[in-house]
Amino acid sequence: EVAALMQDLHPADIAEVMDDLNTDEAKFIYLLLDGEKASDVLIEIDEDDRRRFLKVIPPEMIATRFIEFMDSDDAADIVADLDEDVQKEVLNEIEDIEQAGDIIDLLDYEEDSAGGIMAKELVAVNENWNVATCLKEISRQAEEVDEIFYIYVTDNDDKLKGVLSLKKLILNHTNTKVSKIYDPDIQKVYTNTRQEEVAELMDKYDLVAMPVVDEIGRLQGRITFDDVIDFVRDEAEKDYQMVSGITGDVEPGDKVFQVLRARFPWLLIGLLGGILGAVVLGSHEESLQKVTELAFFIPLIAAMAGNVGVQSSSIVVQSIASGVKDIETPARKIVKEVSVAVLTASIFALLIFCYNFFVSGNMNLTYSVSISLFIVILFASLFGTVIPLILHRFKIDPALATGPFITTMNDILGMMIYLTISGIFFNLV
Amino acid sequence: EVAALMQDLHPADIAEVMDDLNTDEAKFIYLLLDGEKASDVLIEIDEDDRRRFLKVIPPEMIATRFIEFMDSDDAADIVADLDEDVQKEVLNEIEDIEQAGDIIDLLDYEEDSAGGIMAKELVAVNENWNVATCLKEISRQAEEVDEIFYIYVTDNDDKLKGVLSLKKLILNHTNTKVSKIYDPDIQKVYTNTRQEEVAELMDKYDLVAMPVVDEIGRLQGRITFDDVIDFVRDEAEKDYQMVSGITGDVEPGDKVFQVLRARFPWLLIGLLGGILGAVVLGSHEESLQKVTELAFFIPLIAAMAGNVGVQSSSIVVQSIASGVKDIETPARKIVKEVSVAVLTASIFALLIFCYNFFVSGNMNLTYSVSISLFIVILFASLFGTVIPLILHRFKIDPALATGPFITTMNDILGMMIYLTISGIFFNLV
Ligand SMILES: [Mg+2]
Ligand SMILES: [Mg+2]
Ligand SMILES: [Mg+2]
Ligand SMILES: [Mg+2]
Ligand SMILES: [Mg+2]
Ligand SMILES: [Mg+2]
Ligand SMILES: [Mg+2]
Ligand SMILES: [Mg+2]
Ligand SMILES: [Mg+2]
Ligand SMILES: [Mg+2]
Ligand SMILES: [Mg+2]
Ligand SMILES: [Mg+2]
Ligand SMILES: [Mg+2]
Repeated sequence: EVAALMQDLHPADIAEVMDDLNTDEAKFIYLLLDGEKASDVLIEIDEDDRRRFLKVIPPEMIATRFIEFMDSDDAADIVADLDEDVQKEVLNEIEDIEQAGDIIDLLDYEEDSAGGIMAKELVAVNENWNVATCLKEISRQAEEVDEIFYIYVTDNDDKLKGVLSLKKLILNHTNTKVSKIYDPDIQKVYTNTRQEEVAELMDKYDLVAMPVVDEIGRLQGRITFDDVIDFVRDEAEKDYQMVSGITGDVEPGDKVFQVLRARFPWLLIGLLGGILGAVVLGSHEESLQKVTELAFFIPLIAAMAGNVGVQSSSIVVQSIASGVKDIETPARKIVKEVSVAVLTASIFALLIFCYNFFVSGNMNLTYSVSISLFIVILFASLFGTVIPLILHRFKIDPALATGPFITTMNDILGMMIYLTISGIFFNLV
Repeated sequence: EVAALMQDLHPADIAEVMDDLNTDEAKFIYLLLDGEKASDVLIEIDEDDRRRFLKVIPPEMIATRFIEFMDSDDAADIVADLDEDVQKEVLNEIEDIEQAGDIIDLLDYEEDSAGGIMAKELVAVNENWNVATCLKEISRQAEEVDEIFYIYVTDNDDKLKGVLSLKKLILNHTNTKVSKIYDPDIQKVYTNTRQEEVAELMDKYDLVAMPVVDEIGRLQGRITFDDVIDFVRDEAEKDYQMVSGITGDVEPGDKVFQVLRARFPWLLIGLLGGILGAVVLGSHEESLQKVTELAFFIPLIAAMAGNVGVQSSSIVVQSIASGVKDIETPARKIVKEVSVAVLTASIFALLIFCYNFFVSGNMNLTYSVSISLFIVILFASLFGTVIPLILHRFKIDPALATGPFITTMNDILGMMIYLTISGIFFNLV
C-alpha cells in the first residue's frame, strides 16, 4: 500500500520525504518504486544522500534500475560521480549500447561547459523532409524525450540549420517541405561554451532549450531551462552564503550540528583576525596608553574598512557571476574604481573631520582619524576589487574573498594604518 | 538603412544598445521599428529609462504603437506604472476592447500575487472536443500566443481539468475525444498565491508554465518560466546587494556617480554607527585609561558580533526567500536557534579564554573578554534572527536587516556589553 501511495506522488515530493530517511530506509523505498520513478527521485535528492546511497548498491543495479531510465545528462552526472572502477562496471552493465555511448560522450566534456550540462535527447528533423514525414519521425523520437520544446532542423551532415515550431507543423499541408517553413534565425552555443554564458543567453532570449553544436556546427545536444534554473539558483545561493560567512547549504530542516558546522569556519577566521588585531594594537600599547581617545575610533575605522571592502568585492563577484561579456576596458575599469574609492574616501574623511573638529576639539585626533579613514577606505576598496579578480584569474571562486574574509583582512590592515598615522601625529613613534 | 539593420536584431539586443542612448535618440529608434518589435524592446529596457521615455510620448501613441502589440502581463505592468490620468487615457485609446478588458482585469490583482504576474494569453481546449476540433481551435488561439508550451483542458464552466500534450495530440486519431487522452494530474496556483510560492513550485516541478485559477477553479491565465526566472534573479540580486551594503543595481556600464550613490547610504550608516561606538567607548574613558589592554580586543568583539549577526540574519532571509512552507514549528525553531547560539558562544568564548590565559596571563582581562564574547555572540544571534522576522511580519523586506545594518547595530551593542562586563571585573564602576 505504501508502494501505491508513493507511485502517485511526484518524484520531487518523494525526494523531499527521502531527505529525512537513513540509507536503509531509502533503499527500501527505492525498491518499492518502479524504475522510471525511482530514477527520477534519485536525481532529485540531495547530492550527499545520493552518493551515500549509491555506495551501498551494486553496479549492476545502478545500471539497470536507475541509469537506464535516465536522460543522458542526469545519467552522465551520476556516473561521473562514481569511483572510477565502479564507473566502468556500471557502463558495461547498461544494456542499451546507444545510451552507454551517449553517456561516454558526455563524460568527455568539461563539467562547467555547455557539453557538460547538455542532454543528448532531442527532436530533430531533416530539412528535406515534408510535414507528413516529420510528424511520423517526431512521434517516434518523442518517446525518448520528456518534452519536445523545439523541433530542430538539420541538413544531411547533421548541421543545425534552424528551428521548426509545432504551430507551423500543425498549420501546414502534409506535403510542404521543412526547408520552406523552418526559422533559420536560431540561437546556439558550442560544446565548450561556459555554462554561465549559456545561462545568460537563455535568460536574455527567454529560451526553454538551447541547442549545442560542435566546432563545425553539427547538432550535439540541448540544454533545458530547468537545469539552467538550478544552476543559476545554486550559484546565487553560493555567492550569498559566501558573503554572509556561511559555508554550505543551511536549510530549514537542518540539525543544530549542521548549522554549527556551516557557520564555524568563517567565525574561526574572524576570531583569528581579531587576535591578530589585538596583537597589532598591543604593539602600539604606548600610544593607546598616552592618548586614550584613539581607542574610541577603533570600531569606526574597522567598520568602514569592512563595509567598503565587502561592497567592492561583492560588485566584482556579481559582475563576474552575471557572465556578461565586459564592455569596459581594464584601464577604464581601474580608473572608475579608483575614482569611486577616492570620492568615497574624501567624503567620509571630511564628515568625520567635521565631527571631531566640532565635538572633540582635539586637532591631532581630528587629523589622525580623518587621514587614517581616507587611507583605509582607499586600501579597502583596492583589496576588495583586486583580490576577487586575482582569485578568478587563478580559477578559484572569487566569492571566497567576500564577506568575513575581506572584513577580517581589512580590520587588521585598518588598525595598522590607523595606529601608524596617529603615532605620527601624536609624535608617539 | 538603420531601420533595416535594427529590424533584424533581437529585441533583447536592441534594448542593450538603447541603454546607452538619451530619451530623444531612443524616441527616434522606436519610430524606426515596427510596432511588434518596438513594443518588445520597450519591455526589455531598463525600468527607469522606460518611465522617462513614456513620460514624453502621448497616451494615444502608447496605446496604439506599444500596448496593442504586447502580451497582457507586460501591458498591465506598463499601464500600472503610468500616472493615474494617463492610465485612463491609454486604456481608452486601446482599440481591441477584449485586450483593454484583460488589462483592466490584471490591474486588479496584487502586484506580488500570481494574478499580478500572469498573462491572459494561453491555449485551452474543451474536454468534450475531439482531436480534429482541438487542432483547428489551437491554430486559431495560437495566433495570440507567442509559445504554446501546454494545452490546458477545461470543462463547460471553464474550470481547469488538466493538460493535453502536443505529443498526444499528434499521436491520436482525429475523432478521439479530449476527455479520453488528457492528463488530469496538473499543478495549478490561485490568483492570490504569492509569487515566491509560484516560483518555488515551478522550480520544484520543472514547469515551463503554470496555470492560474480563481477561487472556484476557473482558468484565468498562466505564468511563464521567463518571467519567473526574471523574478527569482531580481530577488536574489536584491538580497545579495542588501547583505553587501549596496542599494540598487550596480552594473558594469555604470558611471562613477551611480556607483557612489549605490554605496553611500550604508556607508553613512556605518559612519554614524562608528560615531555612536566612539560615544559609547568615550563614556568608559576611565576604564580604557586604566586598563589599556581592554582596547586591544575591541576589533575582536566587534568582528565576532558583526559576523555572527550577518550569518543569523542571512539564514533567516534565505529561508524566507526560498518560499518553502516551514516544516518546523516556531517552538522547535527557537530551541534550535538558541542551541546553535549557545554552542557557538561557548566554543569561541573558550577559545579566546585559552588564548588570553596562556598569552596575556591577566586573569581579569581573560574573564572579561571571554565572558563578554559569550554574551555578545548570544545577543548578536538573537538580533540577527529576530529582527528580520519582525520586519517580515510587518511586510518590510527582511533583507534590510542583513549586512551593514546588523553589523553596525551589533558593533555598538558589543561595545556596551564588553565595557560593562570589564568594568565589573576590574572594579572600575
Ligand atoms: Mg525522465
Ligand atoms: Mg554534467
Ligand atoms: Mg529573460
Ligand atoms: Mg523577458
Ligand atoms: Mg530538476
Ligand atoms: Mg536535464
Ligand atoms: Mg560564483
Ligand atoms: Mg509578443
Ligand atoms: Mg504585473
Ligand atoms: Mg527544478
Ligand atoms: Mg510574460
Ligand atoms: Mg527578498
Ligand atoms: Mg566589523
